[in-house]
Amino acid sequence: MADARTKVAQAALMSTAQDTEAAFYEALQQGDAERLMSLWADDDEVACVHPGGPRLVGQGSIRVAFEAILQVGGLNITPVNVRCVEGPGCSVHHVLEKVQAMTDEGLQTAYVLATNVYMRTAQGWRMVAHHASPGQPDDMQEMIEAKSVLH
Amino acid sequence: MADARTKVAQAALMSTAQDTEAAFYEALQQGDAERLMSLWADDDEVACVHPGGPRLVGQGSIRVAFEAILQVGGLNITPVNVRCVEGPGCSVHHVLEKVQAMTDEGLQTAYVLATNVYMRTAQGWRMVAHHASPGQPDDMQEMIEAKSVLH
Repeated sequence: MADARTKVAQAALMSTAQDTEAAFYEALQQGDAERLMSLWADDDEVACVHPGGPRLVGQGSIRVAFEAILQVGGLNITPVNVRCVEGPGCSVHHVLEKVQAMTDEGLQTAYVLATNVYMRTAQGWRMVAHHASPGQPDDMQEMIEAKSVLH
Repeated sequence: MADARTKVAQAALMSTAQDTEAAFYEALQQGDAERLMSLWADDDEVACVHPGGPRLVGQGSIRVAFEAILQVGGLNITPVNVRCVEGPGCSVHHVLEKVQAMTDEGLQTAYVLATNVYMRTAQGWRMVAHHASPGQPDDMQEMIEAKSVLH
């Protein structure tokens, strides 16, 4: 019964791509690999690239990598700038991730550029791709997106 | 008239996401920034990340970067391993790109991991995202995708 309630709650959470993305970053913050994996589509070709890492295809290899990343706990990660392309049944999000970690030299901040792709499935909006790569050492990349560059 | 024929030919080329992707890599090989840009969707939020580069949002900034990359000519680039997730009106391709260049030390080979996202539009299948990041120095990343990892 508790399990059924959990499933209903999860489906409700994933009624939009934005909900699924919010749940994705919450799962990373909470170090909850199980919840994180529940957000992925049930498709053999779902794929994930972590910064500097190889391409991981399929839920099995994606799970192994996230469990390794989260085994020391949740990440201090915040999506700070999201740009979206919306299609029928598909949503592409470009996220600037701010990642902070305490080191011997104090609190360090790094930026990661991530492309997250969601598709609408019978189980709600699910993640089908997460491609992350190292950003600039600060948030300078934001300037390049200014409208003034385009016109 | 010639222009109309060109547009008809382009639309025919983009009747599937695979066609659009083939045209994308041909344009890179031929150093044809104009053709390459014709493959992108007409949407302010289309985005592109080159390996190690910032996030580029919108056709204007994407064009500037591709023109800079291609100003010395086409790239020796080959998609060597493509995995796809297909949705209604959306296609997500994970491409291992083999890039070769002649240097003072002979022919050098590098691998790039790219996520390409296409959406079906009134003008055919168009690119909405290209996120590329450095791969491993060889094609070792392929081993990680083996089915044996998953089961």
